[in-house]
Amino acid sequence: MTDRRAEFRALHYTGRPLLLPNAWDHASAAALAARGHPAIGTTSLGVAAAAGRPDGTAATAEETLALARRLANLPVLLSVDIEAGFSDDPAAVAGYVAELAGLGVVGINLEDGRADGTLTEPECIAAKVAAVKAAVPDLFVNARTDTWWLGVDDPLPQTLARAHAYRAAGADGIFVPGIGDPATLRVLTERIDAPVNALYQPGGSGLDELAAAGVARVSTGSLLFRVALAAALAAAEEVRAGGLAAPEGLPSYAEVQGLVPPSAGAQPDGRLP
Amino acid sequence: MTDRRAEFRALHYTGRPLLLPNAWDHASAAALAARGHPAIGTTSLGVAAAAGRPDGTAATAEETLALARRLANLPVLLSVDIEAGFSDDPAAVAGYVAELAGLGVVGINLEDGRADGTLTEPECIAAKVAAVKAAVPDLFVNARTDTWWLGVDDPLPQTLARAHAYRAAGADGIFVPGIGDPATLRVLTERIDAPVNALYQPGGSGLDELAAAGVARVSTGSLLFRVALAAALAAAEEVRAGGLAAPEGLPSYAEVQGLVPPSAGAQPDGRLP
Repeated sequence: MTDRRAEFRALHYTGRPLLLPNAWDHASAAALAARGHPAIGTTSLGVAAAAGRPDGTAATAEETLALARRLANLPVLLSVDIEAGFSDDPAAVAGYVAELAGLGVVGINLEDGRADGTLTEPECIAAKVAAVKAAVPDLFVNARTDTWWLGVDDPLPQTLARAHAYRAAGADGIFVPGIGDPATLRVLTERIDAPVNALYQPGGSGLDELAAAGVARVSTGSLLFRVALAAALAAAEEVRAGGLAAPEGLPSYAEVQGLVPPSAGAQPDGRLP
Repeated sequence: MTDRRAEFRALHYTGRPLLLPNAWDHASAAALAARGHPAIGTTSLGVAAAAGRPDGTAATAEETLALARRLANLPVLLSVDIEAGFSDDPAAVAGYVAELAGLGVVGINLEDGRADGTLTEPECIAAKVAAVKAAVPDLFVNARTDTWWLGVDDPLPQTLARAHAYRAAGADGIFVPGIGDPATLRVLTERIDAPVNALYQPGGSGLDELAAAGVARVSTGSLLFRVALAAALAAAEEVRAGGLAAPEGLPSYAEVQGLVPPSAGAQPDGRLP
């Protein structure tokens, strides 16, 4: 277990950004693992939307844990997005993360943005980070500040202040989504003494440019989930409009079945009594 | 409730095939409903793969019921794929379907193919159809025979025999996936006295051609799920290879959040105690 955490940590220090694609169910996670990604994250928007719950409102503690259980045996390092920890109580957050860690999860994301567009006090997230690190010291805690994401005025000083507070509490990495400009990312990577995580933006900077800015991790957030949904809807439209050509790279029925571990069918609760 | 079942039934008799796209989670179902599809189905492969379970092995009774609960309040008619009923016992299948019907589900698919590539005895499925119809008379039971799907020799006589047996037991529609040739579909629609359901095949006959063959329902099976997965994987590859252009029709974060009913965040079990 500890070896896998060390392996995940080391992926942030190779000199090349760790690309962390984000999954939302077993199929997306297993398929990304099969494509050779050494580590994957989860997307809280995808997990919430799949379950019919809102994101960012602490509504998916159960679904997130259930997903981690389903992904536990995949041959891939797993970091889980737990929004703001699904609780205001640092001890409850630490207990939840300890349960995830017990399943083999090697990292988490913990965020300070709220669904109403405001930021929680930095002390709040810092206390959760500290509680989690006390409970599971070698788990990679990626603290996310939503200063840019939520469009606060003059975000740089506030971002740095929050980053330093989260680092002081024990955060292993700092995630600042929503920055399009590599020069701004470079300022952050120079002034934060920990791996900085950027959110990949379609049409924006590629991995090389993000690498040059000193970014240590690039995650895709909800992008793959939204791409998947868009593709399904477009295909349904084409069928309705008359017909759809066979899409390139379409996995067969057998290939999708092949993503499931052979043992998974033997579980007794799947069948009616 | 009964009105919605009558509405669903009527969609098979408009003179134009009912296009029934198949969803696998709340997001796909809500988005298809928002695109104006009056009815949707579920795909057992998608539901199983999302949950990390194998399809067609009675391993997802619980996940399928949970999905139906999540979709119950969507403004769309819902037909649920229950494989072979998740049980060999007709009474257990009927009880399960009654529970689905209680949630507002208006139809089911019940299949005679097994994951090992063999067909169950037709009497077996007929008994389940009869039990379900006795329990919920006006629910649309679409009986699926996998004669073509599983590649039996000389499939036509066996398909007709099974279709007639399922009809005699009370099935409302007959689903024969795997037929590419419209002339064969025409033979079936002429010799089966109930709506015939075809599986849409990408690159194959379009809706007009299927309509001309007398097909009453066209479903997409696992296609949209597989298209979605392929698109997510392709996007991840593009990001890894350097960069990804903003895909056309990509829903925003807010649009995905908008698929969730406002009440869904208020559920008390989403938050840690």
